[in-house]
Amino acid sequence: MSSHHIVRDEQEPALLIANGESCHPELLGQLLEWSPVVVVLDHAIYRVLDLDIKIDVWLGDFDQIQETDFEQVRARQYPLDIVHTPDQDKTDLEKGIDYLIERGFPAVNIIWATGRRADHAITNMTNIVRYKDRIRIVVFDDHSKIFPLVGRFEKWYAAKTPISLIPVGTVTGIRTEGLTYNLHNETLTLGYRTGNSNEAAEDGFVCITAESGDLLIMECWD
Amino acid sequence: MSSHHIVRDEQEPALLIANGESCHPELLGQLLEWSPVVVVLDHAIYRVLDLDIKIDVWLGDFDQIQETDFEQVRARQYPLDIVHTPDQDKTDLEKGIDYLIERGFPAVNIIWATGRRADHAITNMTNIVRYKDRIRIVVFDDHSKIFPLVGRFEKWYAAKTPISLIPVGTVTGIRTEGLTYNLHNETLTLGYRTGNSNEAAEDGFVCITAESGDLLIMECWD
Repeated sequence: MSSHHIVRDEQEPALLIANGESCHPELLGQLLEWSPVVVVLDHAIYRVLDLDIKIDVWLGDFDQIQETDFEQVRARQYPLDIVHTPDQDKTDLEKGIDYLIERGFPAVNIIWATGRRADHAITNMTNIVRYKDRIRIVVFDDHSKIFPLVGRFEKWYAAKTPISLIPVGTVTGIRTEGLTYNLHNETLTLGYRTGNSNEAAEDGFVCITAESGDLLIMECWD
Repeated sequence: MSSHHIVRDEQEPALLIANGESCHPELLGQLLEWSPVVVVLDHAIYRVLDLDIKIDVWLGDFDQIQETDFEQVRARQYPLDIVHTPDQDKTDLEKGIDYLIERGFPAVNIIWATGRRADHAITNMTNIVRYKDRIRIVVFDDHSKIFPLVGRFEKWYAAKTPISLIPVGTVTGIRTEGLTYNLHNETLTLGYRTGNSNEAAEDGFVCITAESGDLLIMECWD
């Protein structure tokens, strides 16, 4: 078993494992190092059990989970909080984030939320914006790091680091500094004009602000 | 080589191969059967050459393609139209669709446009809405069939077929018939309320209309 399960207070990000494409074990390992609590969503449990890591919370509507499966999971993971969330109006990912907000976590890293079914992938990527003022969220996969713009974003990047600005709907008043193609009080609209495949102009800080709307910042690589 | 390259007029959908996650060879084979013209985007050429299929058009800005590569590609694919599209304001996928519209194609099936980099995946999935009145577009991957709503959508489905309604921004006045969770003159907004994981209520027709905005219909499976 991984040794991540050291008792810390809830100041470090939780790790939420959704049910999309699995990531590389190395990415999982890196994120586990920083995560005092690991939450697994519904059917992802079967793939996660094979990874031999300690799980703290298993959460979902469990619609298609058999009673014998609960016993088998409990036998392999102890202690384990099993949280039943039958609400049909929310996705499993939303329920998982709600749960972590209630428990007072300031941040969550999310993996396995992209790839596979396109409906789930686009919904997972974009739904994180509604939580942006309540918990810091970063979605990781093997090619991407995705997070919402909250207030003013400022971070040091090496020259040519790819940075994409993806509006969830319409975002107005976008201003950037430090990108190869800077935006000067401009509007981006999903489906019509996005800031895909921009990059850090040189070694140094990139700054991004917007006046209204929900902007996703994506660091992606091939 | 595949035998798809029978001369037909341009009434059947072209096949556009982008540069995301490769699909299962069976899906590729099925789509080739219906495609008189195969267009490959930029760097995808290297993966496509290994598949031993006939390519008709190779299109891109070719920024990082060497002169010797052009010769090698030509040697393996003859005849081959090489279309240089240096415009930096458009994605390769947009350039490919523009090209097919100019050539008068009524429809295009697109593969390898999802998965891998999240910025490219979400941009590819959503940018198709801007072309919806000029060419019929369907994006396929191993878990998804994605297409924009144009006018009134009506199609027969088997009971329980998963159907998701994903708004690109805000879509108003959505009305559906034949779904398990029907919408009655309702609004969906990406990031806040989407129609994820709906389904055909029973064997029969599903109808979908909307008053304003761009709605993607997704048939997805695990």
